Amino acid sequence: MKLATLNSHGRGGKTRRDGKLVVVNKALTQYVDVPTIALTLQAALDDWKLLAPSLEGVYQRLNQGDEKNSKAFMPNQCLAPLPRAYQWLDSTAYLHYLELVHKVRGSVLPETFWTTPYMYQGGSDRLVGAHATIEIIEENAGVDFESEIAIITDDVPMHVSLEQAPHHIRLIALANDVTLRNLIPNELAKGYGFVHSKPSTSFAPVVVTPDELGDAWRDNKVNLSLVTTYNDKLFGRPNAGADMSFDFSQLIEHAAKTRQLTAGTIIGSGTVSNQDSSVGSSCIVERRMLEILARGYAITEFMKFGDHVRIEMFSDEGESIFGAINQYVIEHAVSEEEVRYTSAFE
Amino acid sequence: MKLATLNSHGRGGKTRRDGKLVVVNKALTQYVDVPTIALTLQAALDDWKLLAPSLEGVYQRLNQGDEKNSKAFMPNQCLAPLPRAYQWLDSTAYLHYLELVHKVRGSVLPETFWTTPYMYQGGSDRLVGAHATIEIIEENAGVDFESEIAIITDDVPMHVSLEQAPHHIRLIALANDVTLRNLIPNELAKGYGFVHSKPSTSFAPVVVTPDELGDAWRDNKVNLSLVTTYNDKLFGRPNAGADMSFDFSQLIEHAAKTRQLTAGTIIGSGTVSNQDSSVGSSCIVERRMLEILARGYAITEFMKFGDHVRIEMFSDEGESIFGAINQYVIEHAVSEEEVRYTSAFE
Repeated sequence: MKLATLNSHGRGGKTRRDGKLVVVNKALTQYVDVPTIALTLQAALDDWKLLAPSLEGVYQRLNQGDEKNSKAFMPNQCLAPLPRAYQWLDSTAYLHYLELVHKVRGSVLPETFWTTPYMYQGGSDRLVGAHATIEIIEENAGVDFESEIAIITDDVPMHVSLEQAPHHIRLIALANDVTLRNLIPNELAKGYGFVHSKPSTSFAPVVVTPDELGDAWRDNKVNLSLVTTYNDKLFGRPNAGADMSFDFSQLIEHAAKTRQLTAGTIIGSGTVSNQDSSVGSSCIVERRMLEILARGYAITEFMKFGDHVRIEMFSDEGESIFGAINQYVIEHAVSEEEVRYTSAFE
Repeated sequence: MKLATLNSHGRGGKTRRDGKLVVVNKALTQYVDVPTIALTLQAALDDWKLLAPSLEGVYQRLNQGDEKNSKAFMPNQCLAPLPRAYQWLDSTAYLHYLELVHKVRGSVLPETFWTTPYMYQGGSDRLVGAHATIEIIEENAGVDFESEIAIITDDVPMHVSLEQAPHHIRLIALANDVTLRNLIPNELAKGYGFVHSKPSTSFAPVVVTPDELGDAWRDNKVNLSLVTTYNDKLFGRPNAGADMSFDFSQLIEHAAKTRQLTAGTIIGSGTVSNQDSSVGSSCIVERRMLEILARGYAITEFMKFGDHVRIEMFSDEGESIFGAINQYVIEHAVSEEEVRYTSAFE
């Protein structure tokens, strides 16, 4: 089934921080409110085994045209599936990409490079919708997109086994892990991971259950091309199943090694990347690295104000599965509270 | 005022994941339910300006003995103030401590060591109560406590100024940022911050508004000793105001440089540490470093099964302000789902 979180207002017209959960039809044209089942996606995930069958029932009726109260689905009214989530763990599961980084830097691969996943704790307090603008104050921050796949889990016990881990994958999503490349060196120098260099991640309008992908969901990977269009030109279409060094089961096992994962945990794959560079890239920095390796210098610039990126995935029948992420970079309007702002480079 | 989150059950006896918000009296002996004001602490923080005055009214009446429905407050029934939070950003604001780390390792201080805070995105999906056990599967993980101060914010705009930042500090807390020291080297080698080495952080039973600290809350610091007792022996009592290199205003400004912070964001100070080593330490690794510098090797071992730590802070009148964190290390019972568990060291 397909689910989304729509903008919603409570008493007194106040915006609900977590939006409202809706069931969306397969064609992404109609939706139904489901307040009697669960008010929010988090509430559904908190009780997934109990509530998912009811949601599934609505989905079946909606696809058959049997839901009288369905309305036109408008993707630009979607918030992130979980507008504020309790956990967003992002990875670099396509090691080919990271190998390129090391090659360009001339740095040595860490000992555990090929054996354990790279994973970091991402900011989850504010995840944004597919059409949210990327608000930046410093245009020279090196704004980049990262087109990736993410899964959402229910409650995962500490030390979950590789065999059990996939049973906790409840939903699949597309994400744009926006990155400020030029802020990364200072953060890496301190070894504490990413804070400044990772503003809000955005998500495609709908999330889907694994069965929705049919045969394309196998080996705990999404075996379909992830299509990134940059300023209206095709930028990359690598297959998300082809060169994924750690599948989602391995990513969950890694995440849960020393702690439980609470329902609603989102785990990202990192930039989707293929060995075959003819398929293009899912982020600007990968293309820049390929340019450097080919000719000694980078040509493609990072995103500037007005640049936009579109990220989408299609079924074999050519239908958009998740709807599209479509984001523009704009200049952040400085508010009164920011008079003494100091640069993030300092 | 003083607030806490108590264990609570909903319809059908089901445990509420976010517990229930209660107002606790100054002496930490009585509490009152406040369901008509806010069901959870997160709900109160979501609408702080609107709801705080009502909570404050209850607190005043409770202290005056005018609340008829008050009940006996039992700290061991407290969950973390926010049992699952949207954001937990921890810092190392006492640079003296980190300078010791570099001294022992013989490593060079990064360029921005003294000018910008160390801050990492911590796991916030499962924060635990003051009396929660520290469940570990590998006793040799190097289990350590870190006694620290934390603040909780309401919504903070991106790029907030140093002057405005303190107005967003709504609550103050004590935390034990449990750390698995022996898992840190592998994580640092990858530069992605901490995932395995940081299991659930615990919090003292109550959180307090800054005014509750009186004169001890000044310069955006808590100017009181933080008392850590390890296996019933005093371990350290450094003053949390004395050598804090970055105050909470600076920590908030740092955190918000490239993004908004959602209400309920918790920001930690890191291990409280004083230049004057005669006051003792707030974590085992600091004592070990001092031992290494003094005699060439460490004596104090990390926590083993059965070891316990108590963390508390007292007013000048000798009253416990937040109640005590009191945690034992126990062996995690392996469940059926964990049969193929592989070591976190791999």
